[in-house]
Order: sequence, then structure tokens, then C-alpha cells
Amino acid sequence: MRSVDLPTPALLLDIDALEHNIATMAARWPGTSLRPHSKCFKSTVFAGRLADAGHTAFCCATIREVEGLAAAGLGDDLLLANEVLDASRLGALVEDGHRVTVAVDSDETVDAAARGGVREVLIDVNVGFRCGCGPEDAGPLADRARAAGLSVRGVMAYEAHAVLVEDRATRADLVEGAMARARTAHAQVGGEVVSGGGTGSWDLNDTITELQAGSYLVMDTAYAELGLPFRQALFVEATVISSSAGAAVADAGIKALAQDHGLPTVSGADVLYCSDEHIAFIPEDGWAPRVGERVRVTPAHCDPTVALHERYHLVRGDEVVDEWPIDLRHW
Amino acid sequence: MRSVDLPTPALLLDIDALEHNIATMAARWPGTSLRPHSKCFKSTVFAGRLADAGHTAFCCATIREVEGLAAAGLGDDLLLANEVLDASRLGALVEDGHRVTVAVDSDETVDAAARGGVREVLIDVNVGFRCGCGPEDAGPLADRARAAGLSVRGVMAYEAHAVLVEDRATRADLVEGAMARARTAHAQVGGEVVSGGGTGSWDLNDTITELQAGSYLVMDTAYAELGLPFRQALFVEATVISSSAGAAVADAGIKALAQDHGLPTVSGADVLYCSDEHIAFIPEDGWAPRVGERVRVTPAHCDPTVALHERYHLVRGDEVVDEWPIDLRHW
Repeated sequence: MRSVDLPTPALLLDIDALEHNIATMAARWPGTSLRPHSKCFKSTVFAGRLADAGHTAFCCATIREVEGLAAAGLGDDLLLANEVLDASRLGALVEDGHRVTVAVDSDETVDAAARGGVREVLIDVNVGFRCGCGPEDAGPLADRARAAGLSVRGVMAYEAHAVLVEDRATRADLVEGAMARARTAHAQVGGEVVSGGGTGSWDLNDTITELQAGSYLVMDTAYAELGLPFRQALFVEATVISSSAGAAVADAGIKALAQDHGLPTVSGADVLYCSDEHIAFIPEDGWAPRVGERVRVTPAHCDPTVALHERYHLVRGDEVVDEWPIDLRHW
Repeated sequence: MRSVDLPTPALLLDIDALEHNIATMAARWPGTSLRPHSKCFKSTVFAGRLADAGHTAFCCATIREVEGLAAAGLGDDLLLANEVLDASRLGALVEDGHRVTVAVDSDETVDAAARGGVREVLIDVNVGFRCGCGPEDAGPLADRARAAGLSVRGVMAYEAHAVLVEDRATRADLVEGAMARARTAHAQVGGEVVSGGGTGSWDLNDTITELQAGSYLVMDTAYAELGLPFRQALFVEATVISSSAGAAVADAGIKALAQDHGLPTVSGADVLYCSDEHIAFIPEDGWAPRVGERVRVTPAHCDPTVALHERYHLVRGDEVVDEWPIDLRHW
């Protein structure tokens, strides 16, 4: 089957680009030093491919991702890198023999972990962004967790404010500032794990013991700006359904392409806007898209774009070679 | 069950607000003069409620929406208000006795409709936005459609560029300009139908014979700016999972709340940003959200937010009274 025979919109995954990305990352972060983030790819088959490459410890953003990976036999070491107030579904997985660790950053989330039957936690430290306790509160929170019967494996410190900064030197400074706070917290907390980082800091962060990265696998136009050695593997194939007055409209809109990082791109064209099921673009000189022609759209943000689709169509050039269900969506 | 007992994020539908919205619209556009747009609500149970209110003709944006409504016994008069190059799945529905009409705006889409076995079309006219042929091309295209054996029911003319304009007088002018072009096209095309309009032009558009509206049913912060008599019925319930330094983080992010119309809102707070599974906000004076507290987030854009969820939880105040599957997603 060829990709032009797929109903559109269709999410494509370039298998050669994916293999290149897996190998490139594994050379620096082999085995369980990498904790691939399932929030990016949301697929147990995809996770199985990473496990085959030696990455058998996974990072998750939702309870459903943890449950799905465990059910797929990938429950050796699952980290829910997020706070939860009801950990009972995670506790049930622990009861079934899976290793599940959850992030905590408050008395309430420590108590929820203990009450829910989770036995291992990371102290989530705020190093500049979003959740996490202050570095100075990490030690006392670890003490409370241990008093509640929990094993504290170490700290989590995600420098989310740094990973998409385009200028490499600025990015490096932001990473180092964040990791200084992570080291302060870790000195108080103890444990073997310092979990953090992302695609944008993969070769800048020497503090962490394990890298939480997902976007490097498939990439998007935001990460493309950073000049990393990872290739674009994710596209949405669309069909031109209308064309007039120099503009063309194809059948992939905001329900197929997440817009939180702005508009997606079409090679050789200026994208004007997206609506529910449409992308409108003005082709550059020399290209007059005909109605029925296929275009490949590059997402602006990979994670939420993947979450809009039911399956990946794996392609090598124009040939469709496999299909992977995206079975870790929702909550 | 109460909404605080739902796992979060959870999509809530306020049943009283919904009933108010259905009744308000039906007073102006009763029965089949309204063609509710399933791209907004994406649920056959929801569509059944509209059919009970007399609205038995539906508008769709995807083939899957058409198929789902037909399978649910709601195939009296289904319009795919969009161009397609492969109409074979629509033709199969016609073969099974459902009435399916498709929009066409080019020789290619006319040919696709005829080839696929669809028998009825609307000539889609560009009145200022997106797809559609020029008004001057509508007559010749209708001739071509009739020559291909298709029945031309009339024209479709959606003034998408007008419906969200906040100033009412400007909005009225834009609607009138668009409808002047629609009338020109309709005079050439013939047929009984002029299909168009939306929630923002529901009381401004006197040209159309049927209104395509969906957002009025559930509303969002974008349409709220227009001062329409429809109530907010759609919310995402989230749990505060982290709180520090004056900011709080709840567990509903860009995978639960579409961002193409900007950030969602939290009553009594300034929303800072959303990430994959988080919404961060600064509460106004007098509110210090505790970890574990529930918040109701109002979406910025209803259609793509609904498409992120598997089900509506129908609520009356804090009580959960029903659950409706969102079964018309994807393509």
C-alpha cells in the first residue's frame, strides 16, 4: 500500500527517521539512563520498539499511560512524572507486581501515594517551571515520605523553561541554573535518582542520572529550530480538497494538528490558518496544487498532535509498511 | 454521583444550560430550518436529543460523522458540508437508504460525488473564506453536476470570516456582504436550499433557508464575547495537583483543552499557560487553592475541545446525572 491510498488526514511516522533518532539518542543515553516519555508517543507498540533498543524504563504523564504500559508487559520501571491525588489505580499495579514510582511535591501528594498503595516516590523539585516543591523543602518532604512508609528513590527536576530555548548558550545557562537547584535538593533528599531533562537538553544536562525525553523520537517544527541531530519523523498526510485564487485548502485541521505551538507547516507554501478540518496555504511560485493532490504537513508540536490520532501509519518514502495503534490516549 | 468524584480531567456538560440553548435557538430556527453541526458535539446521543427537539437534519464536517449519524438512525437528511475526493463511503450510505448530500466546489469534487454514488449536492460558494467556488462559477458548476446525473439542491455559503466578529454592526455588514454573493450564486444555481450561517450570525442572516450552527449548544469563551443569549454549558473539571508561590497547577492541559483560540479560563484566576497535562493559574485575592481542590475550566474553543474527550459527563450543579459517549470523533 502507498500513502496516497490512505484516507486523509492520516498520521505518518517515517520509520527510517525514527530509527535514526532512536540510535542517535541511545549512543549518549543507553539503556535505562534514558526514560522515554510516553506522553509523546502514546503507543505500547512504539514503547516495545524502545524496549527492544534497551530502554526498558518509561516516563508517563497520566495514570492511563502507566496502566497501558504495565498491561503490555512493559512494567519493569514506570515513573508517573506528575502529581496525583488518587493513587489507587497505581497501587493496584504495584500489587500486581509492576514497579511504579510517582512524583510528589506536597504533604497531600505524599499522603495520596501512601494511601493509594504506591511504595516508591521521587521528590519533584521546582527548578523554574510548573509543579515541584522549593529545593529547600525537598529534604523535609522526603523525611515525611519515609515516615509514611514510602521509599524515596531521589529527585525529579524538569527544566521545562529551558528545553525549547533556541540559543544554545542561553539554553545551557538555564539548564545549569536549574540543575544547581536540583543538586541542592538532591543533597538533602538522597537516593540514587536525579530524573529530568528533555530533548532540548539531551547534550547539555550532566547532572541527571536519567533523561526524560520523548520529542526527539518524532520531532516537530518547534524543536527543529534548535538544530539538533534528530530528524523529522512525524507528518500528517492531507488531500487538497479545494483550490482557488492562489490558495489551496487541504483536509487536515485543528482536530488533526495541535495548534498550541502555532501553525503547522507545508513545505513550499505559506500556511494561512487552520480550521476544524482544513489547512489553507498559499503555495510558492512554481507550484499550483491540484484538487486531489496529497501534501505532507509538519506538526508544530508533536505530543498533542499524536494524541489526536488513533494510529500511526509507518512509512518508508511513499510505501506504508506498518500500522501502530495509539492506545495510551486519554486518562 | 457528584462531579468531585469523577477522575480528572473530565468534560462536563451542564444539562440546564444545554436545554436553555436548544430552546432559545429552536424559537428562531425550528425543525429542519436548523441543521445542527455535528462537528461541534460529535455524539450520536447528543444528536438524538436534538432530533427529539425537532431538528432531524444534520450538518457534518467528516465522513465519519455522516456514517455515525446514519448508523444511529438519524439519516433522514445528512449534509457533509465539506469537499471530498473519495465519496464511496457516502455512496454506500445512500445505497442503504440514507439521504446524504455533499458540498462540491470544483469539477474534481463533482466527479468524485458522481463516481462515489452520492446523488445530491450543494454548490459550495466562497463568500469570503476557505473553500467554495467563486459566485460567478456556481452556475456552470451546477450545470456540470446536473450533467453528471446529480441533483443540485441549492448552494452552501458559510460566512466563517464574520461569525466571530465581536462588534455586532460590523458582523452584520460582513454577513450581508457574504449573503449578497450567496444570492448571486443561488440565482444561477437554483434549488430550494441556501445553507450557511453559524452561531454568530443566528439572528443576522435572513438569506439562508437553513442555519448550520453548533457552538450555540455548548458555547466557549470566544463566542461568549459576542453577548449572545446562549449559556456556557461546557467545562473541563480539573484537580489542583500542585500549589506554590501564589500559583496553582491543575491537571487539565492541552490534551484536554484545545488552544487554537488561545488559553482557556478559570473563574477568579489569571491563567498563565497550559502544557500537556497542566493548567497553571494565579488566583485572585482571597482564593488560595488547596491541593486536591476542584476547578472548572472554560474552554476557549468548544469544537476541538470536545474532540479531545471520550465522553460528556452531564451535570446539574455538582450532581452527575448522565454520561454521553463522544462517538463521532476521528475520520
